[in-house]
Amino acid sequence: MDILMYNIIDKKRLRQALTKEEIDWVVSNYVSGIVSDAEMSSLLMAICLNGMNDTETYYLTKAMQASGKTIKFSYPTVDKHSTGGVSDSTTLVLTPLLASMGIRVAKMSGRGLGTTGGTIDKLEVFKGYDVYKSFDEFNRIIKETGASIIAQSADIATADKKIYALRDKTATVASIPLIASSVMSKKLAMGSNIILLDVKYGKGAFMQNKRDAIRLAKLMVKIGKLDNKKVWAVISNMNVPLAEGVGCAQEVYSVIKTIDGEENNLKKISIELATNLYMMAKNVDRAAALSEVNIAFDKGIKDKLKQIVNAHGGATEYIDNPDKLLESKYVTTINASESGYISDIDALNVARFVMELKQRVDNDKYRQGIISNVSVGDRILAGDKLVTIYSDTKISVEDKDAIRTAYTITNRKPKKLKLIEKVIK
Amino acid sequence: MDILMYNIIDKKRLRQALTKEEIDWVVSNYVSGIVSDAEMSSLLMAICLNGMNDTETYYLTKAMQASGKTIKFSYPTVDKHSTGGVSDSTTLVLTPLLASMGIRVAKMSGRGLGTTGGTIDKLEVFKGYDVYKSFDEFNRIIKETGASIIAQSADIATADKKIYALRDKTATVASIPLIASSVMSKKLAMGSNIILLDVKYGKGAFMQNKRDAIRLAKLMVKIGKLDNKKVWAVISNMNVPLAEGVGCAQEVYSVIKTIDGEENNLKKISIELATNLYMMAKNVDRAAALSEVNIAFDKGIKDKLKQIVNAHGGATEYIDNPDKLLESKYVTTINASESGYISDIDALNVARFVMELKQRVDNDKYRQGIISNVSVGDRILAGDKLVTIYSDTKISVEDKDAIRTAYTITNRKPKKLKLIEKVIK
Repeated sequence: MDILMYNIIDKKRLRQALTKEEIDWVVSNYVSGIVSDAEMSSLLMAICLNGMNDTETYYLTKAMQASGKTIKFSYPTVDKHSTGGVSDSTTLVLTPLLASMGIRVAKMSGRGLGTTGGTIDKLEVFKGYDVYKSFDEFNRIIKETGASIIAQSADIATADKKIYALRDKTATVASIPLIASSVMSKKLAMGSNIILLDVKYGKGAFMQNKRDAIRLAKLMVKIGKLDNKKVWAVISNMNVPLAEGVGCAQEVYSVIKTIDGEENNLKKISIELATNLYMMAKNVDRAAALSEVNIAFDKGIKDKLKQIVNAHGGATEYIDNPDKLLESKYVTTINASESGYISDIDALNVARFVMELKQRVDNDKYRQGIISNVSVGDRILAGDKLVTIYSDTKISVEDKDAIRTAYTITNRKPKKLKLIEKVIK
Repeated sequence: MDILMYNIIDKKRLRQALTKEEIDWVVSNYVSGIVSDAEMSSLLMAICLNGMNDTETYYLTKAMQASGKTIKFSYPTVDKHSTGGVSDSTTLVLTPLLASMGIRVAKMSGRGLGTTGGTIDKLEVFKGYDVYKSFDEFNRIIKETGASIIAQSADIATADKKIYALRDKTATVASIPLIASSVMSKKLAMGSNIILLDVKYGKGAFMQNKRDAIRLAKLMVKIGKLDNKKVWAVISNMNVPLAEGVGCAQEVYSVIKTIDGEENNLKKISIELATNLYMMAKNVDRAAALSEVNIAFDKGIKDKLKQIVNAHGGATEYIDNPDKLLESKYVTTINASESGYISDIDALNVARFVMELKQRVDNDKYRQGIISNVSVGDRILAGDKLVTIYSDTKISVEDKDAIRTAYTITNRKPKKLKLIEKVIK
């Protein structure tokens, strides 16, 4: 066995392609513990540096999918996946929107990872929302309300969990084939034949640059095709937070405001994603899909959101009274020290600040966050409110300086942000 | 701590140079168990693929040396190290030769590894030879006889032992900086200021090609220089076995025959190594050194060898009666199936054959081996003896075919083998 693993590592060290049999062997024997962490991390680093071709990546995806359960529905469903960003709450807008149009959404989400927020953490803001529903309840809720969002079940792609934990410790995360197979092993197991990927790039995203985001998106779309699934990918900009709220309660606040009609980037990207999913599900052209989506949005999706939250046992009072989401011990406002245009709000800096706020409290982490009072492109005067901090601990002068550095003020009006780069099919 | 290791792996993944502090931290924390095997093997694969510069390699060497004891002598000594080959018994010729010339040899050797034989295994052919002498006895024997050869003590470069064991399991052996630092960490700890490296390349060697052998040699010489030691390296060919005997008893047989005056490659390379060590120790030119070495060899070194073996408790009867070394249950001769010239004897095939013979017996493994009855360049007739097998198990037809394939017979006289490529200083 050892000799087999040795030879597999050695092949990849020599930049050779692994066969399906070899990849299946590695994955199943790593899960069972026959392949050690040390052997696996050596192979993972060799993959990081020497790469894998598309076929190898597909084999790895399928081997990891096969290590867990694959869900099957008796009706068509759609799924969406974001590679993670700051204030990325599109799932909470998109899901009731599609459900209200008769497109069933079967969504399993994750918790926050590092500086990127998690849908599951935000859903728990609705007191009583049970993110751990069984598959039967998941199925029942989708049939009843048109959509369900729950935490990814532990028996989906179990190999990916073990491998990801190892990659996280051994600095072998940054590999496009490994990222693609990790995402797709879970998506292919979740039972939807139509999958839209939102691949984000920029300061607040997992992929720092556009080129890598496009490479990752193309590879995931290809894996989908090899598996006879309809997979598209939207490439979107994640340099500035998607909405004014950052922090669980504040992001849910932004979702409600958006549903209530506020024009913002969160709405723009949610409409874009919904339009693509509608095109995929209904085989219509973009213009027709966009028109249907806008009509549905304007008709209102608040009741649908309430229905979905309710079906999971969640309280809906925040949906009617979003201001209640901003209750906290301390409310601190930061004012601009100069006049000019807001040319940048650094998503990563903002996210780190909020992560730090959360670490200061033991309970009610969801209540710690910020609301931006300005957007990129706004003209402001010295003394104008830049940002409001909601916290249960006192905010120091250093804190104020830290969050202020996320905001860049210039004399010249900045170029308009291009939110959606392209769609890869 | 984890974050520190993560960042170190990540630096190497990004092909950046590690600092002395980082390398020291990794080595000491890997030995103490704070750094896990998985983290270490990820770093080792990154080093395999992205390399290390000479300074990093020197830091790694010194960190591994510092993880164990460093020996000090109150008098000058010399040391020799071979990167390992088939029938490489130069230590057993060289050591009494230098000792007879008043140059003290302090030599710690290893056991066989894979297909390459180990000096320590061969010494144990002399019944009673204690390879595990304490440092005090090592010192006493060198002072008394001029030389001692013992097994490398466990407290020399302890980090290297742990790291090498991991590399062996995770396919991270093939890295010139890792090989160089592994060898040199031990050599620098063994107390000699004059070190000659015999870097072998070819089918029966660790380094398959000449270019890699030269790269490795240059790097080790450089590490020596950075540590203010006199280190030279001889680059030598290891495509055919160095002597007619392969197997512990058969190699000791070849050593005695060589000392008794047989002209062969083992003598040639032993004289070459002794000449270089004499030049290094006495600061004389090559011609003067070569002349002194030849005079000493011709004077006879058998008594010196007996004295050294005796000082370690070993019986010396084989030295007087080498034919006794060839006693075994079965003696099988293989004859040439065609006439022509011996153009190649494949060192690796021969070594594998002998390794296989050893695996068939539980005891007296040292007795299993072969003696070549021909050398490269010999003109032979069909039916002439090619090779004699000494074994305690029966030799099958398949065995005969296997060893025969190691011998290539051609019509044309082969080019003369260039045994010594060059000396790197």
